[in-house]
Amino acid sequence: MGTTTTATAQDLTQTLPQEVGTVAPALMAYITDGLFGTVWNAETLSMRDRALVTFAAMVTRGEGAQLGEFTALALDAGVTPAELSETITHLAFYTGWGNATAAAQAMAPVYAARGASADDLPGASPDLLPLNQKAEDARQNMVQNTYGDVSQGVVDYTQEMLFLDLWLRPDLAPRDRSLVTVAGLIAAGQPEQMTFHLNRAMDNGLTQTEAGGMLAHLAFYAGWPRVFSAMPVAKEVFANRAQ
Amino acid sequence: MGTTTTATAQDLTQTLPQEVGTVAPALMAYITDGLFGTVWNAETLSMRDRALVTFAAMVTRGEGAQLGEFTALALDAGVTPAELSETITHLAFYTGWGNATAAAQAMAPVYAARGASADDLPGASPDLLPLNQKAEDARQNMVQNTYGDVSQGVVDYTQEMLFLDLWLRPDLAPRDRSLVTVAGLIAAGQPEQMTFHLNRAMDNGLTQTEAGGMLAHLAFYAGWPRVFSAMPVAKEVFANRAQ
Amino acid sequence: MGTTTTATAQDLTQTLPQEVGTVAPALMAYITDGLFGTVWNAETLSMRDRALVTFAAMVTRGEGAQLGEFTALALDAGVTPAELSETITHLAFYTGWGNATAAAQAMAPVYAARGASADDLPGASPDLLPLNQKAEDARQNMVQNTYGDVSQGVVDYTQEMLFLDLWLRPDLAPRDRSLVTVAGLIAAGQPEQMTFHLNRAMDNGLTQTEAGGMLAHLAFYAGWPRVFSAMPVAKEVFANRAQ
Repeated sequence: MGTTTTATAQDLTQTLPQEVGTVAPALMAYITDGLFGTVWNAETLSMRDRALVTFAAMVTRGEGAQLGEFTALALDAGVTPAELSETITHLAFYTGWGNATAAAQAMAPVYAARGASADDLPGASPDLLPLNQKAEDARQNMVQNTYGDVSQGVVDYTQEMLFLDLWLRPDLAPRDRSLVTVAGLIAAGQPEQMTFHLNRAMDNGLTQTEAGGMLAHLAFYAGWPRVFSAMPVAKEVFANRAQ
Repeated sequence: MGTTTTATAQDLTQTLPQEVGTVAPALMAYITDGLFGTVWNAETLSMRDRALVTFAAMVTRGEGAQLGEFTALALDAGVTPAELSETITHLAFYTGWGNATAAAQAMAPVYAARGASADDLPGASPDLLPLNQKAEDARQNMVQNTYGDVSQGVVDYTQEMLFLDLWLRPDLAPRDRSLVTVAGLIAAGQPEQMTFHLNRAMDNGLTQTEAGGMLAHLAFYAGWPRVFSAMPVAKEVFANRAQ
Repeated sequence: MGTTTTATAQDLTQTLPQEVGTVAPALMAYITDGLFGTVWNAETLSMRDRALVTFAAMVTRGEGAQLGEFTALALDAGVTPAELSETITHLAFYTGWGNATAAAQAMAPVYAARGASADDLPGASPDLLPLNQKAEDARQNMVQNTYGDVSQGVVDYTQEMLFLDLWLRPDLAPRDRSLVTVAGLIAAGQPEQMTFHLNRAMDNGLTQTEAGGMLAHLAFYAGWPRVFSAMPVAKEVFANRAQ
């Protein structure tokens, strides 16, 4: 669950452009006191997870210009270079490939400065995690029956590239894949796609407290309305799982 | 309501990159004749409000590269530096903090050129506007009862930071806070969050004519589909208030 | 329908920043083998259409920094400079003018390098295609009756600028206008606006196979969730047209 939290107040401060203090002193105070001083330290979610969730939200929103600092923050908070590499590969599928390639451009100088080279990063064909064949058969049958006559390409790529490959790659834990997927869906404003993935996240080990902490954290980075549109979905998922 | 409209055709023209004429002469004609020549001068909404709404839409959409010119336009149209500073602070909460910090970076050179320094801008702790305690109690009870078991952090931050603080800051009128909030929701494609805020905007003084003018204006800056998804919500709000 | 497909593997490779190989070797493999090697060559949609759809998605998502390479790719795949110019003019209305003006800035150096000057591009007032008066009357009556009391400006601009002008401009075929419109709606996450435009696209000549191919293609460039939210709409449109 990544409780290594070596990220410091200094790391957080480096994600804040100095122009904020010049143009909006009140915003500066909200960020340093409220966001950095309170939210990032709330016990509902580890700092490592907060850094990963924030990174995923920034990638999803296409905020490449600010991503170098958030890469450094995530690395200092205990996310490994391999995990961040897997995260953008994962988000390429879940938020569009342009976001992921722009992220790679922002990350490259940070990786270079820290000596993380391609040799240290996961390759194209690792040994995959074991597949839950029964669950996958059920998912595939449902999608094939519903959408096979709409776009067989979507159905086929979804199985071959996502569920028989990407999700089974070992260098980002399934719980973390789910975490960045749900964060991406909230940041992209797609609560209608969240039920499946939040359930999967909790099946993969995300607790309800952590999910609630993620929602509060993302209110700041994705905006309040995105989170308030996701809250009813989370409420329904939590209620159904409690039965 | 800000009827100071010193913005000139020249200000508008400076928001139009010259490459448009090279690559898309027809688009250039639509912009200069239709958008600048007709829409910006329509009587439904003041030029000051149009500049503020446009600025809010550009911040929400993350169009930081073009924001310097829209900052200058807003200032020339009668929006004060303090109001723009409050606007990005407000939109930090409503469209994500990365958008606001990127906006600050685009605004800083314009503020510097015009001699607007941090000393002239609202600080972290001004005297707040009076609170409508009864309305706030009702809102808080509803949110606590609905979402307290989903994310107490969201519930608490929403009250403490937004409704007991941000919305009561005096340097942007409540009517204008509502205006930029609704513009942000339309630009972000979140009509499902608009009912509360459009009602609040009209409670705060926005007229139905101005709301209709804002929708027509945003069709250009946020795209037709965003506005057509917002139209049914506006129609329902208008109808309910007419009863 | 543009079956000229002179785009080469080299053109595709130029859309891939080299930092991807450094930071995410696995993503590099997905892109070169899966996306470039398989998806772009699938027979469901011509390479020319894929290049046009990709360009439209990138403009809609505001990915201006990567748009120069996609402009070159589209031109090499058989999209003409006039068609791309009309595409951004069209998308100015359908995804916001800032996206279109940022696209113009990215396209200008490519046009200059290839000697495509403003004189070769469609002007503001070409001879328009014939209007289907009966269909337009029906559309306008519906919109006027539904939304005239919400925003007469939206109703009027929609008729005057879009349906009596933009859609009748001859330098981008109606089928291609529809194609980029639907691609933009999917990329922007607005399936709720897709029914009208997908029907219009198929009335204008887009086949069901091509529509399905576009969905599979956009899964990569707009992200899987955007496409899965569009699938039920496409399914319903296809079913209704089959009756």
